[in-house]
Amino acid sequence: MNRKPRPTGDECRSSLTAVGDALYVIGGKWKLKVIIALSEGCTRFNEIQRAVEGISARVLSNELKELELNGFVKREVHTEIPVVVEYTLTDYCDTLGDVLEALAAWGHMHRDKIRQERHLQTAEA
Amino acid sequence: MNRKPRPTGDECRSSLTAVGDALYVIGGKWKLKVIIALSEGCTRFNEIQRAVEGISARVLSNELKELELNGFVKREVHTEIPVVVEYTLTDYCDTLGDVLEALAAWGHMHRDKIRQERHLQTAEA
Repeated sequence: MNRKPRPTGDECRSSLTAVGDALYVIGGKWKLKVIIALSEGCTRFNEIQRAVEGISARVLSNELKELELNGFVKREVHTEIPVVVEYTLTDYCDTLGDVLEALAAWGHMHRDKIRQERHLQTAEA
Repeated sequence: MNRKPRPTGDECRSSLTAVGDALYVIGGKWKLKVIIALSEGCTRFNEIQRAVEGISARVLSNELKELELNGFVKREVHTEIPVVVEYTLTDYCDTLGDVLEALAAWGHMHRDKIRQERHLQTAEA
């Protein structure tokens, strides 16, 4: 396991504010999942809704608006008939690389831990 | 800005599952905030509730239970009179170091970006 010394004092408070800022923008239940769906190539509202399991149309609509406001998502309206609205990720999303990488590494590690614990429980039973 | 080539195919899908796993456990509106409050030294329920702005007692109680279930939080009941219940972080929380670091770095960067944009808007106005 990857242990680091815990920071203290000012360093800690500044980081906490920054983590708070980050969570304010990309935290919550859906933001990163919507970004992931878009990164997989979904562009239409209904496609995105299908890809993000459990999200309602009202909530997805709000999340897309907030993501657009924060510069992650570009909304394009193609005015030919039928009118098509497409959502795509902006280059700014690439700045999330380290965050997603750290989350992915942690997710892998956590899954392995859960598996090991289950294995031990089965062995003990 | 920190840009990396986007991964594709299997690599991508495996990471997405792992990010999904991580978000399942530490995602949502409150989990990391509760962990941060505990890391700042809050141990009592009311202390934690004051530190995590806007959380209701019912939700905090649920979040603490889930965090305990996932091995992040230890709940200790001291049975002297008055009975005291204390919540503390386990060593397993230290594994979140990289995730919190990446979030903090991103939060700093995003705040600077927003500031620059505001500055530009003021200069243009």
